[in-house]
Amino acid sequence: MRKGERTKKMIIERTSKLMNTQGYLATSISDVMKETGLEKGGIYNHFKSKTELSLHAFRYAIEEMRKNYTDALSDKHSSTERLYAILDTFCDLANGRPLPGGCPIMNAAIESDDAHPDLRAEAQKAMSELYKMVHAIFLKGMKNSEFSAAIDADAMTTIFISTIEGALMMTKLYDDPVYMNRAIRFLKDQITHIQHHA
Amino acid sequence: MRKGERTKKMIIERTSKLMNTQGYLATSISDVMKETGLEKGGIYNHFKSKTELSLHAFRYAIEEMRKNYTDALSDKHSSTERLYAILDTFCDLANGRPLPGGCPIMNAAIESDDAHPDLRAEAQKAMSELYKMVHAIFLKGMKNSEFSAAIDADAMTTIFISTIEGALMMTKLYDDPVYMNRAIRFLKDQITHIQHHA
Repeated sequence: MRKGERTKKMIIERTSKLMNTQGYLATSISDVMKETGLEKGGIYNHFKSKTELSLHAFRYAIEEMRKNYTDALSDKHSSTERLYAILDTFCDLANGRPLPGGCPIMNAAIESDDAHPDLRAEAQKAMSELYKMVHAIFLKGMKNSEFSAAIDADAMTTIFISTIEGALMMTKLYDDPVYMNRAIRFLKDQITHIQHHA
Repeated sequence: MRKGERTKKMIIERTSKLMNTQGYLATSISDVMKETGLEKGGIYNHFKSKTELSLHAFRYAIEEMRKNYTDALSDKHSSTERLYAILDTFCDLANGRPLPGGCPIMNAAIESDDAHPDLRAEAQKAMSELYKMVHAIFLKGMKNSEFSAAIDADAMTTIFISTIEGALMMTKLYDDPVYMNRAIRFLKDQITHIQHHA
């Protein structure tokens, strides 16, 4: 890798951690300068604007999150195990892994709103990827008769994601794992309820 | 009300709407100048800093949200009706009432993180008020035998708030009411399940 590319990668990695914590919009270029040890020119040499840098930082955060899913799911076969593994990756997010600041999708969704249409579009894309993954697990469980055929996979997917995201927000707000723990226990109970008992 | 107080109130009201949409941290003082039609000095005449203004804006947003709860709950007597009424106020938030930008508690929770300890403390206070209100409704329902005595009121409160907050985030992200509608149907089902059938 050329030196310029290495520097660009370093800026994205460090800014990603910073922006996922302090905000994709609220983080200032002087925060980025402090975090990277670079002058303003050294940053704008690689990115046209702070907006462009924030999009790179968000995509990097999503890529890290995706790696975590892929790892967690790699040796899980049943739909129940796969849903549990996704809950584990949300516990990781609550504990600052793979990056600090909670769920990048939720952070970008809340922050971007009307203020940053490109970031909003990226957040939609990332949420749709998460949604499709969870939805496919529910569908496969129905198809394999692991889950009851009577469930509404879209409703289950929406409840699964919204409950865990909301609980992550509460756990981060109070710095208290109890909210995530309650949500995980509840969602595991929901999964037990839909299991097909032939 | 003196002219100075009227101006201060006008700044808080307009900034509250702006910051709940664009961010309590990410909104710049020039955004506030544009929204209020005031010069920078005219704003800092009333507030020591943007941080102080953002705390006022957040408290105003919470006060508006609180009025909406109080109205919605005023003529509701059973715990089921009261929980339904709170779900209605979240639908209002999704539709920009009483102010645009979604739930101020979630917005401030996500944004403040490590970056703004005073706003985080205010968000904790507002969330605790919501939590206690919902928790008291579940407890009263148990006491009156409207709900089963076997429920865990803390777990129910956590699921109720996290699911509706997460679904509000999804509905706002996609500008699609389907996520809120699914969460509300699900939570109403949960309430039906815990109803005491003597």
